[in-house]
Amino acid sequence: MAIITILGAGAMGSALCTPVCRAGWEVRLWGTWLDGHLLDVCEAGKPHPRTQIPLEKGVKLYRSNELNKALEGADVVVMSVASVGVPKVTELALKGISQAKALWLTSKGFCPDKNGKIQLLPEAIRIIAKQKGVLIPPIVAIAGPVKANECAEGKPTATIFGCKDLEVSRKYAQEARTEVYCIEATDDEIGVEICAPMKNVYAIALGIADGLEEGTGFPHHNLKAATFSRAIKEMSLLGQALGARMETAFGLPGVGDLEVTGLSGRNKVYGVRIGRGESAKNALAEMNRLEQTVEGVPAASLAAKLVEQSAPHLKEKMTLLQAVNEILAGTERSVVRVLSEAVLPQKP
Amino acid sequence: MAIITILGAGAMGSALCTPVCRAGWEVRLWGTWLDGHLLDVCEAGKPHPRTQIPLEKGVKLYRSNELNKALEGADVVVMSVASVGVPKVTELALKGISQAKALWLTSKGFCPDKNGKIQLLPEAIRIIAKQKGVLIPPIVAIAGPVKANECAEGKPTATIFGCKDLEVSRKYAQEARTEVYCIEATDDEIGVEICAPMKNVYAIALGIADGLEEGTGFPHHNLKAATFSRAIKEMSLLGQALGARMETAFGLPGVGDLEVTGLSGRNKVYGVRIGRGESAKNALAEMNRLEQTVEGVPAASLAAKLVEQSAPHLKEKMTLLQAVNEILAGTERSVVRVLSEAVLPQKP
Repeated sequence: MAIITILGAGAMGSALCTPVCRAGWEVRLWGTWLDGHLLDVCEAGKPHPRTQIPLEKGVKLYRSNELNKALEGADVVVMSVASVGVPKVTELALKGISQAKALWLTSKGFCPDKNGKIQLLPEAIRIIAKQKGVLIPPIVAIAGPVKANECAEGKPTATIFGCKDLEVSRKYAQEARTEVYCIEATDDEIGVEICAPMKNVYAIALGIADGLEEGTGFPHHNLKAATFSRAIKEMSLLGQALGARMETAFGLPGVGDLEVTGLSGRNKVYGVRIGRGESAKNALAEMNRLEQTVEGVPAASLAAKLVEQSAPHLKEKMTLLQAVNEILAGTERSVVRVLSEAVLPQKP
Repeated sequence: MAIITILGAGAMGSALCTPVCRAGWEVRLWGTWLDGHLLDVCEAGKPHPRTQIPLEKGVKLYRSNELNKALEGADVVVMSVASVGVPKVTELALKGISQAKALWLTSKGFCPDKNGKIQLLPEAIRIIAKQKGVLIPPIVAIAGPVKANECAEGKPTATIFGCKDLEVSRKYAQEARTEVYCIEATDDEIGVEICAPMKNVYAIALGIADGLEEGTGFPHHNLKAATFSRAIKEMSLLGQALGARMETAFGLPGVGDLEVTGLSGRNKVYGVRIGRGESAKNALAEMNRLEQTVEGVPAASLAAKLVEQSAPHLKEKMTLLQAVNEILAGTERSVVRVLSEAVLPQKP
């Protein structure tokens, strides 16, 4: 039985245990120094606090001081910590990673390196390994429309594995597949990695369009749909500029994931607040007070930096990204106007 | 001032009056023999019964027996009747159409010709004109995520004009544009025409996924997102097989329109009923009792015929279309299973 060690016992790490367990893997779940209370609850057999679903039976739990034990003999290591924690956990786990056959990655985000250059996470991990002189196995970027609670519960879920070596993504797409957790394989690591954080940015915009109904007394479904369509276009444009395939944004990582993210979730809720008339700043303070991290907020400014650094010719073309950043900065223009100008077709 | 004559005083025909009026056209709205009561209400200055928005001021109304007067000197004729009425209204209006510079088309659907061959509406119109020996001007197919009430109210709206002659779509995209009704221009008439009826079929599937939450007590957002993604893929596949551009389905006519259609509307509501456990047959009877036409139902079987006739190599590949037809026919399998098998990735 192949061994898989999942690093990070949050929502996605714990949810992934369900399919891989059912697909026949020996599953180890390691909690970071921030995850102790989550493991306590799971060990007591109660539902995981983030997914409200009990951990799949048979999963072995490891505390933060048991990292080496958790990694020993692992065939696959999965990085599932919050994106800000990826550099540190990569360094700590580097030996175990180097001895595995693959590193899967469910963490998602933009990661500034030491020189302030924005990297996608697989590249950030490769840079760290290179600096330490360690060879690491192929990275498999995992994305798509996966709400953790449904994955944990064993509800039908489509996901995508992206590895530069297509044979590797295909191999694991077969080996981790169950009847309800079904995996597409692609070689487009970059496309998969671009869509995931961008969809958080754009989900804020979708939330704004939703909130306008409450704010103005009239629905703005046409504007929301134009925003959705524009978001997909910009994901595809940015991806292509960085080496991704055009079509990746049109599939599960883009269209699919934006659909599920725009349906609910914190980014959308934050956008709704803005749409109904709260200032971006006050709405964010309120989200923070409720301990609701809005990932799209830092992602929006990091994405703007990424465009400036690595795809400057797109700067004026990423009109929706610009609009979200203008709104987050507290624009004095009306939000509906800023959004409309960004997403409605230009004069032909 | 250019004259535009809109044929059909239903939701979309009356809604289109707002932007074209505001863009400076002289607007004539002709009601069919089924629209008399709608014109009565509009003439009384009350909100249009379908959009709940009063007709834009300055629009001239014409009764069904005033067709020739309505068409006299029209620069543009717009076909906005229900798709089943398109052949008859085309025949009645053929002279006026032939004298105009363009025929715009907001009607959408699949239209069986006299031999039972499924045609897209522009082609159906061309065939009728040819049979009568009449030359008609270029056809501009109009689609995209446009809820009629928001368009009528002057809320921000993105739409797309598709004419085989790109110069023609560009010209009208400029001339009908307002600050809030913004138009993309394409030469992909087929792509635009395929997406519109297909989105009604797929909105039923999205509704089913929504309804499963009520039916099973657990959300199926992942399945819904996978369904959305699959729907876009099939629109693109079918479009390409019939000569459309791949990317049309990824823009306003596909992604955009499916988003807004899946948000609400009759097709989605019908799907929700099925998802929560009603039989397809009973749910349809109930929709009919409430006078809620579900356009996606006839479109689903016509689409299957279209595939069989014009793209038989796609028959097995249009798995979601097949699944919707299986469910509408009253499958004995569980709906969640039928949908999952259709939209979750196949073994790589």
